[in-house]
Amino acid sequence: MITLSSDFGSPYPAAMKGVISQKTDARLVDVSHDFPRGDVRTAAFWLREILPYYPPASHLVVVDPGVGTDRRAVVVRAGEHALVGPDNGVLFPAARALAASTDGSLEAFEIDDSATETDLLEISHVPETAAENRPNGRSTTFHGRDVFAPAAAAVHETPLDQLGSLEGLSPIGALDSLVEETLPTAALEADSDRARGEVLVVDDFGNVITNVPGTFLADRESVVANGSRVPVGATFASVPVGERLATVGSHGYVELDVNDGRGDEAFSLEPGDEVVLEP
Amino acid sequence: MITLSSDFGSPYPAAMKGVISQKTDARLVDVSHDFPRGDVRTAAFWLREILPYYPPASHLVVVDPGVGTDRRAVVVRAGEHALVGPDNGVLFPAARALAASTDGSLEAFEIDDSATETDLLEISHVPETAAENRPNGRSTTFHGRDVFAPAAAAVHETPLDQLGSLEGLSPIGALDSLVEETLPTAALEADSDRARGEVLVVDDFGNVITNVPGTFLADRESVVANGSRVPVGATFASVPVGERLATVGSHGYVELDVNDGRGDEAFSLEPGDEVVLEP
Amino acid sequence: MITLSSDFGSPYPAAMKGVISQKTDARLVDVSHDFPRGDVRTAAFWLREILPYYPPASHLVVVDPGVGTDRRAVVVRAGEHALVGPDNGVLFPAARALAASTDGSLEAFEIDDSATETDLLEISHVPETAAENRPNGRSTTFHGRDVFAPAAAAVHETPLDQLGSLEGLSPIGALDSLVEETLPTAALEADSDRARGEVLVVDDFGNVITNVPGTFLADRESVVANGSRVPVGATFASVPVGERLATVGSHGYVELDVNDGRGDEAFSLEPGDEVVLEP
Repeated sequence: MITLSSDFGSPYPAAMKGVISQKTDARLVDVSHDFPRGDVRTAAFWLREILPYYPPASHLVVVDPGVGTDRRAVVVRAGEHALVGPDNGVLFPAARALAASTDGSLEAFEIDDSATETDLLEISHVPETAAENRPNGRSTTFHGRDVFAPAAAAVHETPLDQLGSLEGLSPIGALDSLVEETLPTAALEADSDRARGEVLVVDDFGNVITNVPGTFLADRESVVANGSRVPVGATFASVPVGERLATVGSHGYVELDVNDGRGDEAFSLEPGDEVVLEP
Repeated sequence: MITLSSDFGSPYPAAMKGVISQKTDARLVDVSHDFPRGDVRTAAFWLREILPYYPPASHLVVVDPGVGTDRRAVVVRAGEHALVGPDNGVLFPAARALAASTDGSLEAFEIDDSATETDLLEISHVPETAAENRPNGRSTTFHGRDVFAPAAAAVHETPLDQLGSLEGLSPIGALDSLVEETLPTAALEADSDRARGEVLVVDDFGNVITNVPGTFLADRESVVANGSRVPVGATFASVPVGERLATVGSHGYVELDVNDGRGDEAFSLEPGDEVVLEP
Repeated sequence: MITLSSDFGSPYPAAMKGVISQKTDARLVDVSHDFPRGDVRTAAFWLREILPYYPPASHLVVVDPGVGTDRRAVVVRAGEHALVGPDNGVLFPAARALAASTDGSLEAFEIDDSATETDLLEISHVPETAAENRPNGRSTTFHGRDVFAPAAAAVHETPLDQLGSLEGLSPIGALDSLVEETLPTAALEADSDRARGEVLVVDDFGNVITNVPGTFLADRESVVANGSRVPVGATFASVPVGERLATVGSHGYVELDVNDGRGDEAFSLEPGDEVVLEP
């Protein structure tokens, strides 16, 4: 199975699927192609929370505002999973979570995308106009199609312990040379019983997902969120429609929500904003 | 085959697909994840019209504004199909249509979602933070991922005549104890040759789908819709671009449409509005 | 493999997938269901650029503003690929590109959609209300579901050299009787070194894709686009965020873009607008 994640909307993902299908019959599953454009941190959050629910698979991830620059293209093996994408941090939180959920091992490889043709990046069918204009056989603005898709297909067809022998992949010895997107963690002040965190993302429903662990809400009937008291509820329906609540979201973090409404609007919060929770 | 339907938008459906893929290799087909948020009736309509086109399959349906409350989680077997979702009525019009299209049989089971671990709900891979905060191993706000997805996978792997033996499923003896969403039917006044119905849904094109059977338009060149005369046409192109028409929609009901435009705007109609059709 | 393309949004494609699944186990891949409504030219462009990346497959294409009129429903065999859709030109640029990428052969067939029942259009499961209102067993407004989907499934199950023997398909002898959408080509004025073209499409990112071949930008550091000088860059990041550039897009044509912004807004251009490029 190969999962696909990007900020491409439509129809660019279909070109990636075509390229992959030239090289493998693997089942394809879309995670999302609607990640906010060029927003590495938001994509990194969602992938960290979602990919660990998958059985061993290859994960193609293309949120790549630096496409065509000298940022590296990489393959990261995390336990029994492989991730393929740009070296801009988007892969890392998910890679660590996938490694933690299997045997803990992490290994990285650089994709050689300057070579004219390698097993890794070879694709057979390319439309004429695109081919005529592709230096080294690939575009400078759509590495999802021309680099990451063929690499993900080739990686998927290779046993994970033999990735190092794949033509076009070079081991990266020092993992700490990779760009790492570290999602912030909340500070829990033990004496004051206060949590100081921030908004990680706002989901499609408007739920405000913070980085404060859900355990902060245990045994509380209400909390003060950024100065304003709200009830703690286990479900949206624990408060009337249109009312605010704090809850333990499905990812295990404190969420600031509205029953049948948008928490981001009711709390005036967006990703990156500080959130202080008090008893 | 397992079909997936929800009001989740993106990327939550991907977590459900991961969970399902842990438990079965079944092919996954998205019906829609863009149903209006929490709108049980609209989803019920679309599922009634679309699912009967599928060969025998399992259907995961999560439009669930009462998630985490004491509304039941259920499996409904309808002929050779199985539906899995909340007991809020969203499954029923489709279940009746699927039963009608096969052998007419209906059977229901309650999912035991309070037990710590059952065959039905067992999932192997859960990210650490989510696991730490899941009472009984599951969240209170995302039963799509933690209850319905694993249940749909387990149901799909079980012969339909053995659902009763699946650990974690209890037969519901009285089908009339299930919440039933009954989509309204139009009144046809034989003497006045008038139809009094309502708007069931408005589709993405703006077509206004009513509950008046298409046969009402047979042999008519025009009708009066809510007081205003419009031509009857078999195709959008039977009237000039931008003009209104009444037609027999693809579901077999009278639709009020505009050629290359939005019927809902031209007729000022939305779901639930009354529609009176006269000769 | 069967690819699906339409302007249907959601959830109508799911009905097509149900019908197809009644007749074949082929893998289904969505190209896009978000093509602009009724915009044959834009869909034709994207299909020409994307489908050639696929291995041999059947391609269901439904951008069909004339649904239900006397426009023909057709199957076009292009090399080892088959395309199924309306005879309004949407298939042709892709068909020529697919033929060029394989053995160059093109062959066309008309789908007989007036017959009550043929192997080609037979579907077993139809909901009751829809069935009662379908003249000849099919609707007049949703040929995607009632004509093209069953035809694509039947075509996919038939060896391409035996399409002519399929009940319900008639050979079209003269290919030039088919409606052909010809995407415009740019004029290159050799003496003045000027290119006069137009905007073919604007993608989801706001990138303005012209029909001027990318070779026009070779060895240039800047160009004058519609009277205004912009730098030529190989990557978005070659200019500061928010700045305009001209680049060779992934399809091989000159694109007018903005780094991390919308080119269509910055250049005030939309599909069909003239673009003049000068040294």
